[in-house]
Amino acid sequence: MKRILILSLILVIAAASLVACGRNRESATPEPVASTGDLPESAMQIASSRGLTPNDINAALKTYMPSGKWDEYYLFASGGHSGQVIVIGVPSMRILKNIAVFTPEAWQGYGYGSRESEEILNGGNVDGRKIRMGDTHHPALSETAGDYDGQYLFINDKNSARVAVIDLRDFETKQIVKDPNIISNHGSTFVTPDTEYIVQGTQYATPLGWEYAPIEEYAEKYRGVITFWAFDREKGRIDPSQSFAMEVPPYWQDLCDSGKLASDGWAFCNSFNTEMATGGIEKGNPPFEAGVSQRDMDYLHIFNWKKAAEVYKAGKTEEINGMPVISIETSVAEGLLYFAPEPKSPHGVDVTPDGKYMVVAGKLDPQVTIYAIDKIEAAIAAKQWELDPFGIPILDFDAVKHAQVELGLGPLHTQFDNKGFAYTSLFLDSAVAKWTVGGDDPASWQLVEKTPVQYNIGHLSAAEGDTVSPDGGYLVALNKWAVDRFAPVGPLLPQNEQLIDISGEHMQVLYDMPMGVGEPHYAQMIKADKIQAWNSYPEVGWDPLTQSKSPHATMLGEERIERNGNQVEVFMTSVRSHLTPEHVELKKGDHVVWHITNVETAQDAVHGFQLGGYNISLSIEPGETVSFEIDADQDGTYAYYCTEFCSALHLEMMGYMLIEP
Amino acid sequence: MKRILILSLILVIAAASLVACGRNRESATPEPVASTGDLPESAMQIASSRGLTPNDINAALKTYMPSGKWDEYYLFASGGHSGQVIVIGVPSMRILKNIAVFTPEAWQGYGYGSRESEEILNGGNVDGRKIRMGDTHHPALSETAGDYDGQYLFINDKNSARVAVIDLRDFETKQIVKDPNIISNHGSTFVTPDTEYIVQGTQYATPLGWEYAPIEEYAEKYRGVITFWAFDREKGRIDPSQSFAMEVPPYWQDLCDSGKLASDGWAFCNSFNTEMATGGIEKGNPPFEAGVSQRDMDYLHIFNWKKAAEVYKAGKTEEINGMPVISIETSVAEGLLYFAPEPKSPHGVDVTPDGKYMVVAGKLDPQVTIYAIDKIEAAIAAKQWELDPFGIPILDFDAVKHAQVELGLGPLHTQFDNKGFAYTSLFLDSAVAKWTVGGDDPASWQLVEKTPVQYNIGHLSAAEGDTVSPDGGYLVALNKWAVDRFAPVGPLLPQNEQLIDISGEHMQVLYDMPMGVGEPHYAQMIKADKIQAWNSYPEVGWDPLTQSKSPHATMLGEERIERNGNQVEVFMTSVRSHLTPEHVELKKGDHVVWHITNVETAQDAVHGFQLGGYNISLSIEPGETVSFEIDADQDGTYAYYCTEFCSALHLEMMGYMLIEP
Repeated sequence: MKRILILSLILVIAAASLVACGRNRESATPEPVASTGDLPESAMQIASSRGLTPNDINAALKTYMPSGKWDEYYLFASGGHSGQVIVIGVPSMRILKNIAVFTPEAWQGYGYGSRESEEILNGGNVDGRKIRMGDTHHPALSETAGDYDGQYLFINDKNSARVAVIDLRDFETKQIVKDPNIISNHGSTFVTPDTEYIVQGTQYATPLGWEYAPIEEYAEKYRGVITFWAFDREKGRIDPSQSFAMEVPPYWQDLCDSGKLASDGWAFCNSFNTEMATGGIEKGNPPFEAGVSQRDMDYLHIFNWKKAAEVYKAGKTEEINGMPVISIETSVAEGLLYFAPEPKSPHGVDVTPDGKYMVVAGKLDPQVTIYAIDKIEAAIAAKQWELDPFGIPILDFDAVKHAQVELGLGPLHTQFDNKGFAYTSLFLDSAVAKWTVGGDDPASWQLVEKTPVQYNIGHLSAAEGDTVSPDGGYLVALNKWAVDRFAPVGPLLPQNEQLIDISGEHMQVLYDMPMGVGEPHYAQMIKADKIQAWNSYPEVGWDPLTQSKSPHATMLGEERIERNGNQVEVFMTSVRSHLTPEHVELKKGDHVVWHITNVETAQDAVHGFQLGGYNISLSIEPGETVSFEIDADQDGTYAYYCTEFCSALHLEMMGYMLIEP
Repeated sequence: MKRILILSLILVIAAASLVACGRNRESATPEPVASTGDLPESAMQIASSRGLTPNDINAALKTYMPSGKWDEYYLFASGGHSGQVIVIGVPSMRILKNIAVFTPEAWQGYGYGSRESEEILNGGNVDGRKIRMGDTHHPALSETAGDYDGQYLFINDKNSARVAVIDLRDFETKQIVKDPNIISNHGSTFVTPDTEYIVQGTQYATPLGWEYAPIEEYAEKYRGVITFWAFDREKGRIDPSQSFAMEVPPYWQDLCDSGKLASDGWAFCNSFNTEMATGGIEKGNPPFEAGVSQRDMDYLHIFNWKKAAEVYKAGKTEEINGMPVISIETSVAEGLLYFAPEPKSPHGVDVTPDGKYMVVAGKLDPQVTIYAIDKIEAAIAAKQWELDPFGIPILDFDAVKHAQVELGLGPLHTQFDNKGFAYTSLFLDSAVAKWTVGGDDPASWQLVEKTPVQYNIGHLSAAEGDTVSPDGGYLVALNKWAVDRFAPVGPLLPQNEQLIDISGEHMQVLYDMPMGVGEPHYAQMIKADKIQAWNSYPEVGWDPLTQSKSPHATMLGEERIERNGNQVEVFMTSVRSHLTPEHVELKKGDHVVWHITNVETAQDAVHGFQLGGYNISLSIEPGETVSFEIDADQDGTYAYYCTEFCSALHLEMMGYMLIEP
């Protein structure tokens, strides 16, 4: 009896300590340093014994985040062929969360039974095949008036031409849509300034609907599309019924960007196979790498998307595989699409914060080329063009080109700061080039300095660096090779995301972050206070798929097992430290629908759920209701249990599923 | 022509820069600081403006890792219900790599088509069901003479009672074995001092083979086993044909540890349901959390594994589901199994570095209890025991207990340093207790100090802290709750892995690492120079499954497509920047076996491979040959491409798979 009392006492203490831990666990906080005299002498000893240079010391102090202090920025990075999104705190460069998007992830209970996540993933099926992986490339935060608003994040899957929507209230994927006409995208996702549309461009051209056509019929039958996915902000979902696409030639469209302010209403995409090369090295043809790099110039695609939306709404489209498509002919007739020559094989097209200029970085040209929207509009008005084989106007290069700046080898992608500078990644130079965003005078666009990075930088991301109002301060170099930078982990190395201080006169590399959970392509960096994330779900019994109360919500005392023939429905609750019911008795052949409601409301009171011998892994956050289904196809005795170490009696939080023969 | 020359030049430069980047990209290195006078004044300004305390400054300087400097230790952490292993550098606490183990991972090409990984994962199937997730708990590095040797890592899956082997030459999973008798493990993996066996214990008892039996027949029919998986170090694989298990009562065995030095030959496991409670809160029974915590004492299981191995080799076993099992009766008759009472619901049993003492932390008892192996052996010799209901000797508590130290609320797990101290996690106190590992005098075992951690620490891991030769210096607190520690990421929070400096007189928390890619349970920390990882595979055409040359290796010039009826075999190579062949022409209904050899040998010259519309994602490291199979069940035009940004012309590294109707 005495022992039972002690046990009860301990349990009460446990509960109290868990509730209170957010508030009362601070030890007495030492005062921050105020002057040189305050610097601990031990600091010098440490720095000396570890061989730190003065630059290292500064970098350490700029990036270190004391316990409980929050990072200033979130970096939302694509995970590359992990198919996910990685959330990183800046300046500490710590991974705060891996968000499952296209690939199942057991820890988050995504794609391992939960009906909610299966429904989302099934939205991305291809020809009935359950695609359960992806290749995420370009995240795009939702924008209001051209600035990040912190509400939603979009991300593409290059591999199967899909786009996903993530809700930043709970940092969870809510929707995946599959483009019905293409099998590969790359120039996505990019949003229009008020997130009216999410722009997505084809990479590798195929016949629309990826139907079969011999490669010899490439020019005739293969095409790309630029798809404008309509976003319903109220519902927080892409609305395919309000979306449309524009047919484009099979020129392998690459990165895109939306115009803003001065260029609002326009969108821009690069291309890099205007040669329409079709490869076939094994047949003695030039390989793709050479074939698509033969011409001096490719074409910047310039879309008048506002006008295109009107043309779509006026019904001047052809429905292809369920998607309204504006044909090239209609685009030409309505003045929706123009080309501007751009030096060969460009990668990024990036619009300056004021919207006046488009910066194109051509990876085989040492210069960036700057176009001016007023010159583009003037050239269109003056019809200063010739026609490409598809009848699309190619604007006169000299008429639309505003300036060129020689930066170095392999320029790929450009971001901006708050002091009038642009930053361009140089893949071959392994460097970041800082240069001035000039004005009317082309000579005012000039290289300022370069700093080496380690190694082979792809994209870069500056703080809010692609909005109308960049913050400056931080820039992250997304380096593709790490080689000797980190302790060895075998032949598959991490990549190296380097944080660079751009607040001062000179760039300074502050931190090397190994990326060993994916291969990020692009990232966006947003001020942390713009995101209003939930700490727990708004009410107990919440369905994160619909962001509303679940019809299967089960409150304490309502737990039950309902049987109708061999159809069984389980209504379970989870709370520290038990799952109710603790016995789920079934018969072989039963089909079971199983709902679990985490009735806790305390922040961090997450319960996981796994069921031995089945592919069931759930994460049930405070207030959440999750459902899954199984067939009891083999008799036996199985254990289910909580997988989050939620309390001292967590191991006891289990039950038996008994399937009678 | 001029342009083609420029292109060629650029490609040469690209290749040169990639090869050279590991050596030549250092900027002029500033001298390290040597004295207080060298400290940059800017450091003070930074510290002051960021509100850093003297402790923060010291911590920043102790954990910061300058670009290109390697971490001193690897921390191998389980990923919890991610089913993976997470490799973290210490002291920087940066994630170096996520190793896919039980759960497919697209980025690493694990479980997304590659025949090698599918074969490994299929080793863990349960009743023919492809289990593609897990709940990793306790990693164990291979040992030689009780010390980590850096060759292999083992990890369990609690959810389906499986064990995996990871080779630390390439940091890849090589084998998964499924225990045929149990469906849930927890006390695993733990190795014997020369890695003769990998120890695994049941958690939730079921009838052996998880057959059906009503819960009312619990004491009669439910059982646990302790399995001793034999490890063939030469082959680097578990050898099931040399493995055996020992039947134990259905007492819910928990953590285990192997004896060493003074206790070599023994193994120890805790238990926490000697009540044999069967739950059923919904029927008015005590819930498991209360039912399993009723008694004052549970039983430390003491196994003479060396003698058990002899008994197994002598054939005194019963084969159950293909596994030789030593029955409880045989264990008792042969003197293989003893119990020692231990305060209720213990978690960790941890053997001191000299092997003389076993430390048991009982989560509902504020003391740790220390047992001495000589006292255990003496009590056995003197037959100071009574019998449990299964006939197993329960040694006299006072005869085997050596000391008890009151540490605080919720002690779970203990590690050791090189100065004679032990460190125990206190879940309910949210603290780490430091105490003296005493000697013969029970009074010499004493609490020294406690330091708070944030919050609710589960396991902890000190540098080589469970070996015969702990290093001291660093300790990581694996905290389960983070609450307010990090910028919000919605209702599913990261956990908080805190690095603690244990080199000085007082413990100091140095760093908060958010763990947002899994929920680590336990971790082991090994000196980095003990691991001899490969930078690339030993020769071109390597099969990582067999760690030998692949029969499907394809050299440059040997690429081909072979057709035999509707059976097609593709032999492809990858090299910067093309895949050969670039056209794979198929007919609907073909079955395709596709091999790709990365013919590169340069470190980091990894190529990925994905195929649109199919669940194929490969990572082909330098020298590796990977194979996958698909059914060409729908006609169409599909793109395949390299998913690692390997060169400036990476986007051009693609091909078309054309399936004719």
